[in-house]
Amino acid sequence: MRINTPKDSLTIMTEIVLPNDTNNLNNLFGGQLLSWMDRCAAIAAHRHCRRQVVTASVNNVSFNHAVPQGSIVTLEAVVSRAFTSSMEVFVDVYIEDQRGTGNRVRANEAIYTFVAVDQLGNPIEVPGLEPETEMEKIRYEGALRRKQLALILGGKMKPEDANELKKLFFPEEH
Amino acid sequence: MRINTPKDSLTIMTEIVLPNDTNNLNNLFGGQLLSWMDRCAAIAAHRHCRRQVVTASVNNVSFNHAVPQGSIVTLEAVVSRAFTSSMEVFVDVYIEDQRGTGNRVRANEAIYTFVAVDQLGNPIEVPGLEPETEMEKIRYEGALRRKQLALILGGKMKPEDANELKKLFFPEEH
Amino acid sequence: MRINTPKDSLTIMTEIVLPNDTNNLNNLFGGQLLSWMDRCAAIAAHRHCRRQVVTASVNNVSFNHAVPQGSIVTLEAVVSRAFTSSMEVFVDVYIEDQRGTGNRVRANEAIYTFVAVDQLGNPIEVPGLEPETEMEKIRYEGALRRKQLALILGGKMKPEDANELKKLFFPEEH
Amino acid sequence: MRINTPKDSLTIMTEIVLPNDTNNLNNLFGGQLLSWMDRCAAIAAHRHCRRQVVTASVNNVSFNHAVPQGSIVTLEAVVSRAFTSSMEVFVDVYIEDQRGTGNRVRANEAIYTFVAVDQLGNPIEVPGLEPETEMEKIRYEGALRRKQLALILGGKMKPEDANELKKLFFPEEH
Amino acid sequence: MRINTPKDSLTIMTEIVLPNDTNNLNNLFGGQLLSWMDRCAAIAAHRHCRRQVVTASVNNVSFNHAVPQGSIVTLEAVVSRAFTSSMEVFVDVYIEDQRGTGNRVRANEAIYTFVAVDQLGNPIEVPGLEPETEMEKIRYEGALRRKQLALILGGKMKPEDANELKKLFFPEEH
Amino acid sequence: MRINTPKDSLTIMTEIVLPNDTNNLNNLFGGQLLSWMDRCAAIAAHRHCRRQVVTASVNNVSFNHAVPQGSIVTLEAVVSRAFTSSMEVFVDVYIEDQRGTGNRVRANEAIYTFVAVDQLGNPIEVPGLEPETEMEKIRYEGALRRKQLALILGGKMKPEDANELKKLFFPEEH
Repeated sequence: MRINTPKDSLTIMTEIVLPNDTNNLNNLFGGQLLSWMDRCAAIAAHRHCRRQVVTASVNNVSFNHAVPQGSIVTLEAVVSRAFTSSMEVFVDVYIEDQRGTGNRVRANEAIYTFVAVDQLGNPIEVPGLEPETEMEKIRYEGALRRKQLALILGGKMKPEDANELKKLFFPEEH
Repeated sequence: MRINTPKDSLTIMTEIVLPNDTNNLNNLFGGQLLSWMDRCAAIAAHRHCRRQVVTASVNNVSFNHAVPQGSIVTLEAVVSRAFTSSMEVFVDVYIEDQRGTGNRVRANEAIYTFVAVDQLGNPIEVPGLEPETEMEKIRYEGALRRKQLALILGGKMKPEDANELKKLFFPEEH
Repeated sequence: MRINTPKDSLTIMTEIVLPNDTNNLNNLFGGQLLSWMDRCAAIAAHRHCRRQVVTASVNNVSFNHAVPQGSIVTLEAVVSRAFTSSMEVFVDVYIEDQRGTGNRVRANEAIYTFVAVDQLGNPIEVPGLEPETEMEKIRYEGALRRKQLALILGGKMKPEDANELKKLFFPEEH
Repeated sequence: MRINTPKDSLTIMTEIVLPNDTNNLNNLFGGQLLSWMDRCAAIAAHRHCRRQVVTASVNNVSFNHAVPQGSIVTLEAVVSRAFTSSMEVFVDVYIEDQRGTGNRVRANEAIYTFVAVDQLGNPIEVPGLEPETEMEKIRYEGALRRKQLALILGGKMKPEDANELKKLFFPEEH
Repeated sequence: MRINTPKDSLTIMTEIVLPNDTNNLNNLFGGQLLSWMDRCAAIAAHRHCRRQVVTASVNNVSFNHAVPQGSIVTLEAVVSRAFTSSMEVFVDVYIEDQRGTGNRVRANEAIYTFVAVDQLGNPIEVPGLEPETEMEKIRYEGALRRKQLALILGGKMKPEDANELKKLFFPEEH
Repeated sequence: MRINTPKDSLTIMTEIVLPNDTNNLNNLFGGQLLSWMDRCAAIAAHRHCRRQVVTASVNNVSFNHAVPQGSIVTLEAVVSRAFTSSMEVFVDVYIEDQRGTGNRVRANEAIYTFVAVDQLGNPIEVPGLEPETEMEKIRYEGALRRKQLALILGGKMKPEDANELKKLFFPEEH
């Protein structure tokens, strides 16, 4: 099976925040952004494996900046690591200064996991992923730790077996 | 400030999965469900504090069952713990067998965190929460651990200071 | 065939009034509320009979309170009486005071009739209904009168044969 | 104040039934049609009085024909009678044979009542209405009877005072 | 094959401009109007040929008047000329003065071309069109010129072969 | 005022064709694509001038390939020429082969014109544009010809004054 690089899956979406997307403070609803991020991440996962994909889990979404109505929102999704049939996808969300310089700031980050499935919904194997840039390598390394964490929280792995994750707490022991 | 119980914030939403909510396998899109869960959880957080709330983070959403088109989906959100100005909310998602008995199964679970804000978007204090049932107490206890985990992953707390979380890995030492 | 109680069909929907749901007075559009009520009532009818249902008629919808943008709207639908293949469903709509106490007021009431159909769209028999509470009994009693009224207005029954309905006008004669 | 004729308020809407508008039998959802009818009727009422209008009640909506996906649906709304500040509006719904002759059949009928309001939401006077055609005169005559019926069902009029309505049951006495 | 007149295809749509349809100046988005015009024109083309139609091209859409939120927008589409399997459709867009007289002004005009297709998507023949009014004849005449222009711009015709179009530039020579 | 290059305005949108976006042949509706293209082009125009923009006209949209349900559609918009207060924007639409190689084909092209306006809706000056690549230069050159054509078709310029456009028909004379 072929090996892809992260940039093979890069998916860009640009959206404008319309009135119906906002809460009573006239900022983008969290739920609307979650939906956009899922759609963008799903296309990235699909581009990696060229198969139907389904959302398996969502981790570590934090909303750091309010996104006001009228904002131009750019989402960039990229596969950060491929396992047997699952793929971890990072989504970075940027908003740009609308009047002055057009400079953009990163407003949010999210990590989604997708599973590739056949037409009956059964998991199937996906291509491997080889990180290239420094950032891609950092995210690739962290993916295993995040996977163990999800397994523990879901009761499917014992904490003492999560070797990667334990390094986070007791780096000196390893 | 008053103390509420979890059931004061209980919010129930019932939805039908329409064609536009589905992927090519005719199952509910993950992104649509994330959006519904956010809306349901936001109302629960609002019912707890009676103030405007904004999504702060989403944790540990796992999609365990495919939800086919035409399904009746019931979401139940409830505040599991209140901190100074933030609230952790659990959302349980059920689908019901449509033909035979109407029995329902739990298809998903998600944990959202909301912050109460004033009209300028600044955080404000929320009422306390007192768990009553066994399940409410378990979720209340776990909330502190989950908060520490989010702080570590966000780089705002050192792993060695996360006392609650460390118990998860080395229960014998505490 | 089994007998159900009204609470077997109880269906709760919670919605927030978004900008696109409002008219130029910033209150909820009547048409949007009609659509939500139909969806909620259809799920209740489905829960009673566990078959596909279609809207047969809508009666006596009155809009008593304006529902401002940002309101949290709760709809509660319950089957009030079952006939051979049709079911009468009551929908009560509540809005809650958003700032102070969270007390809720009943803003609207509607009565829908649904018919259970097979996959060809032909009417099929539904389970019976046995009211339990005082309110359920009152609504159950009134259903026959409302059915006769609909038949007369639709030209399918002669007014002089509508015995139940005539009691409304000349109670002393019966 | 000026007097209008029904055709001054005639409002035509044409819609196509898309997948998301349909139930599991691939026919138009009742709730979607109710929403379209409300919007069409509201524009007709607005055209009669040139003021903001709000839905006051919905009466006697019956769904006689299933409307399959892909259908072209034409709605025609017209004010049938004007009272002090309220207007009764008839909505006729047609679907057309898509392949052969393009002949259209009337699939539904609904009667809505709207109230004209000022910017504070208080009722204001509307122009009078003078029916012209035979059909317009029949609908105009029936409007008073329907108004009394709504008042009785809403507990705002005693049945014995509803002179117009009683004629329906005992035509020989009047 | 039968011959139709333009009024056989006349299609009227009435819409209200809702908050979500507007840009930051609170006027109707161009893209929303383009979508409504396409839907209206497609129904007109369908009514001419009673077959499935697909959009082939859009020409000469100009936005002359801003359309403010809350406006009542009326679209009128009519087939202006039929070729072998394609139809040119004019869409006129009107907005009406909401408070005073209700007078309406023409805010936009667009010309769409549709092709009739069978269930495999292959082009099929459509009925002829015979213009009746003066305006219909002018639009009918211009259609051939516009078709040649589209062919040239698409590189499918040489400018020197576009006899109809050249008259526009050098009327004296012909 | 500063000079921008086309790539300063490059805007990428990625969409999936959902059931509600399709016609009865299960292909993307033309109207939906027109709406996406307008939104994408508007963001590109905004990125060029950093001011509010409104759609002035749409020209030469041709639909060359059917876009089936489930397709991943990528839109790329870029400003091709800036005039005093208006900007011409090209939108290229690609669909990608979903199963095999992921190769993409260009399915559509459209040219939009936007005008930059102040908060009162009055036109304001925009930065200049300097094309860099060969393709950018070809599109830049053609823009003046297309502008003259629009002026003639709108009755705002006499054909004999359209020097650029006449070259198209009689290249040898110039």
